[in-house]
Amino acid sequence: MEEQHIASAFDRDLEAIQARIMKMGGLVEAAIMESARALETRDEELAQKVRADDKAIDGLEELINEEAARVIAIRAPAAVDLRVVLSVMKIAGNLERIGDYAKNIAKRTGVLIQGHDALDSAAALRRMAREVELMLKDALDAYIQRDVELAGDVITRDRDVDQMYNALFREFLTHMMEDPRNITPCMHLHFIAKNIERMGDHVTSICEELIYLVTGSRPEDDRPKADTTSTTPQEV
Amino acid sequence: MEEQHIASAFDRDLEAIQARIMKMGGLVEAAIMESARALETRDEELAQKVRADDKAIDGLEELINEEAARVIAIRAPAAVDLRVVLSVMKIAGNLERIGDYAKNIAKRTGVLIQGHDALDSAAALRRMAREVELMLKDALDAYIQRDVELAGDVITRDRDVDQMYNALFREFLTHMMEDPRNITPCMHLHFIAKNIERMGDHVTSICEELIYLVTGSRPEDDRPKADTTSTTPQEV
Repeated sequence: MEEQHIASAFDRDLEAIQARIMKMGGLVEAAIMESARALETRDEELAQKVRADDKAIDGLEELINEEAARVIAIRAPAAVDLRVVLSVMKIAGNLERIGDYAKNIAKRTGVLIQGHDALDSAAALRRMAREVELMLKDALDAYIQRDVELAGDVITRDRDVDQMYNALFREFLTHMMEDPRNITPCMHLHFIAKNIERMGDHVTSICEELIYLVTGSRPEDDRPKADTTSTTPQEV
Repeated sequence: MEEQHIASAFDRDLEAIQARIMKMGGLVEAAIMESARALETRDEELAQKVRADDKAIDGLEELINEEAARVIAIRAPAAVDLRVVLSVMKIAGNLERIGDYAKNIAKRTGVLIQGHDALDSAAALRRMAREVELMLKDALDAYIQRDVELAGDVITRDRDVDQMYNALFREFLTHMMEDPRNITPCMHLHFIAKNIERMGDHVTSICEELIYLVTGSRPEDDRPKADTTSTTPQEV
């Protein structure tokens, strides 16, 4: 009976922490889309909101880490339960980094020049951000439901995000060669595209963490890696 | 006596984990310099070594996380000791990310075009990498010796790295505007410079983690942030 009692106290603690993870995830999902929208519509106020929300996201990570440490100290969870608590800290770390990337995008709201090329790029960046946001939503659902199949599906979708990035990289190069006035804005747009691509990598990490948690092995070696820009440097 | 016995068993475990952190740190320091050198000398073999070493770095992080989890499970450390173990995991995470950036740089060894401009940039990138490597060395010394002053000093030096990055960013823009043939290589060189700048941020995180461990408060709000490229988008 005593053991049962301890187990359910641990479960309650874990549920409380996981509820915070979901809250943090909701804020990060919003930050992804809002940073892309602020860029597209040059909305300084929305960009400011993304920056302010990032402080809330950082605060939640801090809180989750403290609570996880407290649960470990008080409940002294056994091997499997300990792995669950540690995974929560890892996932909070990944969410915090995605939030950071959104904040960095929001800092560059003033970067877009007028003109149809720039607007095309902004729309492409928004689509890419949208894909990452949906991936994150599914990754968090997969985590809560311990759904390894859904997690694997999200990892596969990260390949699409990498391909979107590759296409944009080539597009930016073309714009820059066509007109030197495009160079500065395209450098910033490339930076933004790379940030979104990195967000996708962190969503992938969350899924890998879940798969490790459930199956005990990491899928890392099979991870599809489709950013080919580093290996085709001279290509336009 | 029993408590004394448990305390020193914990200390021995902790020392073993910290020894692994130092080993991991040594590999990461080497990876930073070797990736910059491989780029400058277009040394594909050295680049290959950096990529292979990154697997060893990842393996050490995995091992450190497992050992830390085992120590928590077996020794059930109290609040302060628990914070030390958790900090070790955070630092291993930061080292792993720095190693990743070095690996990404090593992937771009073929990027440099011939010519004095490119060689100048490679030398500047190597100086930047050298500064980050020295910062990391001091950060790890500060961690082992619990030296808050040295950690604060390293955080301040990250400002120099940010300034080196800003200078390079402007230099790349100039090269690209002078000659469209510079655009593709400069996009990659910018990517590399940004990676080195991010390595510096992770060294800063290690120092902040130590300061938090010793003083109980985070210095984050005072962190000097001197990457100004995001706020001066139209400037050359």
